[in-house]
Amino acid sequence: MLEQIDLKKKLSKKEFQKEFPEVQEKLRQVQADLWGAGVPMLIVFEGWDAAGKGLAIEKLVSRLDPRGFKVHRIKAPLPEEKMRPFLWRFWTKTPPRGRMAVFDRSWYGRVVVERIDKEIKKKQLPESYEEIRSFERQLFDDGAVIVKFWLHISKKEQKKRFQACEADKYLSWKIEKEDWKHHRQYDEYTQAVEETLERTSTSFAPWTVVEATDAHWSHLKIFKTIIEAGLQGLDRKRRREAALQVKPAVDTEQITRHTHPTILDKVDLSLKLDKKKYEDELKKLSVRMRELEFEIYKARIPVVVTYEGWDAAGKGGNIKRIASQLDPRGYEVVPIAAPSAEEKAHQFLWRFWNQIPKAGHITIFDRSWYGRVLVERVEGFCHEDEWRRAFQEIKEFEGNLAEFGAVIAKFWIHISKEEQLRRFEERKTSEYKSWKITDEDWRNRDRWDRYEEAVLDTLENTSTTYAPWTIVEGEDKYWARIRTLRVLTEAIERRIS
Amino acid sequence: MLEQIDLKKKLSKKEFQKEFPEVQEKLRQVQADLWGAGVPMLIVFEGWDAAGKGLAIEKLVSRLDPRGFKVHRIKAPLPEEKMRPFLWRFWTKTPPRGRMAVFDRSWYGRVVVERIDKEIKKKQLPESYEEIRSFERQLFDDGAVIVKFWLHISKKEQKKRFQACEADKYLSWKIEKEDWKHHRQYDEYTQAVEETLERTSTSFAPWTVVEATDAHWSHLKIFKTIIEAGLQGLDRKRRREAALQVKPAVDTEQITRHTHPTILDKVDLSLKLDKKKYEDELKKLSVRMRELEFEIYKARIPVVVTYEGWDAAGKGGNIKRIASQLDPRGYEVVPIAAPSAEEKAHQFLWRFWNQIPKAGHITIFDRSWYGRVLVERVEGFCHEDEWRRAFQEIKEFEGNLAEFGAVIAKFWIHISKEEQLRRFEERKTSEYKSWKITDEDWRNRDRWDRYEEAVLDTLENTSTTYAPWTIVEGEDKYWARIRTLRVLTEAIERRIS
Repeated sequence: MLEQIDLKKKLSKKEFQKEFPEVQEKLRQVQADLWGAGVPMLIVFEGWDAAGKGLAIEKLVSRLDPRGFKVHRIKAPLPEEKMRPFLWRFWTKTPPRGRMAVFDRSWYGRVVVERIDKEIKKKQLPESYEEIRSFERQLFDDGAVIVKFWLHISKKEQKKRFQACEADKYLSWKIEKEDWKHHRQYDEYTQAVEETLERTSTSFAPWTVVEATDAHWSHLKIFKTIIEAGLQGLDRKRRREAALQVKPAVDTEQITRHTHPTILDKVDLSLKLDKKKYEDELKKLSVRMRELEFEIYKARIPVVVTYEGWDAAGKGGNIKRIASQLDPRGYEVVPIAAPSAEEKAHQFLWRFWNQIPKAGHITIFDRSWYGRVLVERVEGFCHEDEWRRAFQEIKEFEGNLAEFGAVIAKFWIHISKEEQLRRFEERKTSEYKSWKITDEDWRNRDRWDRYEEAVLDTLENTSTTYAPWTIVEGEDKYWARIRTLRVLTEAIERRIS
Repeated sequence: MLEQIDLKKKLSKKEFQKEFPEVQEKLRQVQADLWGAGVPMLIVFEGWDAAGKGLAIEKLVSRLDPRGFKVHRIKAPLPEEKMRPFLWRFWTKTPPRGRMAVFDRSWYGRVVVERIDKEIKKKQLPESYEEIRSFERQLFDDGAVIVKFWLHISKKEQKKRFQACEADKYLSWKIEKEDWKHHRQYDEYTQAVEETLERTSTSFAPWTVVEATDAHWSHLKIFKTIIEAGLQGLDRKRRREAALQVKPAVDTEQITRHTHPTILDKVDLSLKLDKKKYEDELKKLSVRMRELEFEIYKARIPVVVTYEGWDAAGKGGNIKRIASQLDPRGYEVVPIAAPSAEEKAHQFLWRFWNQIPKAGHITIFDRSWYGRVLVERVEGFCHEDEWRRAFQEIKEFEGNLAEFGAVIAKFWIHISKEEQLRRFEERKTSEYKSWKITDEDWRNRDRWDRYEEAVLDTLENTSTTYAPWTIVEGEDKYWARIRTLRVLTEAIERRIS
C-alpha cells in the first residue's frame, strides 16, 4: 500500500494560494457546525519523523476557534501512565461534544514504535489492534468523527530533511541519535505501519495516507479530508435523530422474556450469620484484606470493586466493612451519582476511565458504569440502542482492565421487596436515617419489575470469566458483608498465586 | 458465567400449556412481519450433546410457515468444504431477506470442537473469533437479526441422558464412543465454551444461554427470545428507513478531496510493446502460467484474480490471454453483471462467496465485488452508508480468503478518456464489434469524473498487503496483457516459494 503512494505530488505556491483561503474558510464553518450540533472530532497525526506533522498541525489550528480545540502531544508513556491500561491516557483526552482533539502522535505508538522497540510482544498485537478498534468504535457510536493521517515521505527524503536540520545551527539539537536509528529502521517500520493501516482502517475510523513531500499538497489534502469527514459526521447526527423519532411498533416489555423463577428469585435470602460469628469472621477477613492490599501493591496489581444493588440493600455499610482496615493511601471509594454536565458531554465510560485505579491500588465503586444498563435504561435517560450497545462496551472496558492485569469483582447486593419496604419504613421513622430516604426511592420501588428485568439482562450479558458477577444475599447484613469480603479476598488470592 | 446458570429451572406442564399457545401465535406473527419487511433472521443452536437441540428446533419450526425457513444441520466439514475458507459454507447458507435460517450447530464448531480436537491451533483463535464477529456484523449491518442459543445441561444430566438413550433399543445407536469421549471432556469443553461466549457475544449478535434441563422451560425461553429479537429487528428496519429520508445538508462532491494530479493522472499511458516483443513474452508467460496452474493445484493454493477498469479498457482480451494456455479444469472465468433478484435478496458479498475458487483452483472475475464501491456508488444503486461500509467489508472478505492461503491479484485496467472515445467510435463503426457498445456506455462516459473519484477512493481504501491493487497501463493492449501476466505469475511464485 505505502509502496504505491506517489510521493512526487506537489502544488505550486500559486495553485495553493488560489485554493487554500476558501478551504480554510470551509473548515472554520465545519468547526462551527460541529460545535453547534455537538459532534466531537478526533484528528490523529501519525507519520515519519520529519514528515511535517508539527507544521501541519500549526497550519490546521491557525484559523480555528481556539476555544474549540485542544492539541495533545503524545510521547512515551510517563511512569504515571504506565500504571494504567494503555488506552487510559487517550480515553481521558477524548474531546467533549462539539470540540476537537488533535493528536500529535497517538495510541498508534503501541503497535508501531513499541512494537519495533520490542516493548510489546508480537503475540500481544492482535489484542492491541482489537483494543484500538473497539476504542474508536465506541467513540464513533457515541457520535464522534475520527480522522487519521499517516504523513508519508521516502527514506531518502527523510535523510535529506535530517541533514538539513543538522546543518542549521538553530535546529540541529532536534536530531538525536535515536532519530538516525529509526531512520535506519525505515524498512522495518514500513512493514509495521502497513500492517497497522490494514488492521485499523475501518469504516468508522479510516486512515488517510498523505503524500508529505510537498507541504502545500499535504496541507490541502489534510484540510479537505477533515472537511469531508466533518460533513459526514453532521449528516450522521441528523440521520440518527430522524431514526430516534421512530416509535417502537410493539412494546417488547410485554414479552417478559425472563420466565419466572429467575436467578434472583432463586437467591436464598434466609442465609444469615449470628453476631458472634460475624465479628470473628469480620476481624479475620479484614486483617487478611489489609495484607492483600500490601501484596497487590508490591505486585502492582490494580483491583476494581463494583457495588450495585437495590436501594437500601446495604451497599454503604458493606463497603465500610471492606475498607475498615485498609491503608487509606492504597484505596479509594468512588460514589457514583448522576453525571455532571461535563461528564454528559463525553461518552458514558469516560468518567469511569478517569477513576480507574492505578497499578497496585484498589478502587471501590459505589454504583458504577452499570448505571447505563440499569437506571438510565429504566428511566429512559438513554435510548434503547445506547443501552443495548452498552453491554458490549462495558465488556470491552472491563476487558481492557483485565488485559492490564486488574482483579475485577462485581457485587449485586440483593434483598427482597418486602425487606426493602421494612428498611424504608425504618429510615422514615428513625430520625438520624431519614435523610437517606427520598421520594425518588419510593418511585424506584414502584418500578421494581422493570428494574428487575434490567438487572437480569445485565447479569446475563456482562458476567465474564475476567469480571464475574457475584449475587450477594443481602437480607442479613452480617451475612452479606462476610460474603463480599470472602469473594473479594479469594479473587485477589487467586490472582496473586 | 456457565457456572452461575441455574439448571434447576423448570415449568410444570400446566404452566407451559397456559402460556405456550399465545407465544407460538406471536412467533408466527413475527415471522410474517419479518417476511413482509424483508428482514432475514439467523437462529443458531449450539449446546451440549443431548441437550435437546433437535427437539427445540422441531418445536420451533412446527408452526412456522415452511416456505419461510430452512434448517441447516452442520456436521464436520466435507472434503469439498475443507477446500474453501471456513466461513464459505455458512456464507452460502445465509437466508435471503425475509426468510429464516435455523442452524443446528454452526460456525462455532471451529472455536469449540475443532479447538478441543486440536484441528486448529491456539494461535489461530483470535483470528477465528475476529472472522466470526465480522461475519455476524456484516449480516447485521445488512439488516439481519441474529439469535444464538447455547443449550446448557450439567455433566450429570448429560450422563443420565446418554444412559437412557443407550438403554432404549430404538435409540441406542445414537450414542457412540465419540460421544462418551466428549462427555469425559466436559470440563475442558466448558472452558472453551465460556471463552467463546465471551468473545462472540456482541450487541449485534448476543448469545442466550438456555437452561435446558427442563424442555418446557427451555422451549418457552427460546420462543420468547426469538420474538423479542424479531421485534427489535423490525424496529431497526423502520429506524433505518427514517434515517435514510434525511437528505445530506452539503454536497460533499464539492470538496473534491482528490487534489490533482491523482495516481491515475500519473499513470504512464505511453508505455507500449511492439508486436514481436509481445508475442515472445506472451508465449513465455503463458507457458509459465500453465506450469504455475499445476503447481498451485499440487500445493492446494486458491488464486483469485479480479479485473476492474474503464469500459472498453480491454479486460476481456486481457483475460483471454491469461487463460489461453490454462487447463480448463483448473480455472474459471466469472463475468459479473447486475445482480439477479435472488442475489439482491442477500448481502452483496453473498454471490461472490458462492463463486470463490476452491483450494488449488483459479477464478478470474471480470468485474467483481468492487461494483459496490464503483457503479453502485456512482449510480446511486446503494446508499452512501452502504458503500462507505463496503470498503471494510471487502477487506474482511479478502482477508478471509488470504487467511485461508489464497493468492489475490486485483487489476485496474486504465485508459485515457480520449482512448476510450476512440475505441467507442471504432466499435460503433466496426460491424462485428457494434454489439459491444450501448447507450449505457456513453452515459457512463459522461460520468467519468464521478467514476474517477470512486476509483481513487477504492484504490486508496482497499489496497492491502494480502490483496494489492495493480494499476495497469491499458492504452497499449500488448503492454497491458504482458503486465498483468507478469504481475500474476510473480504473485503466485512468491506464494509458492
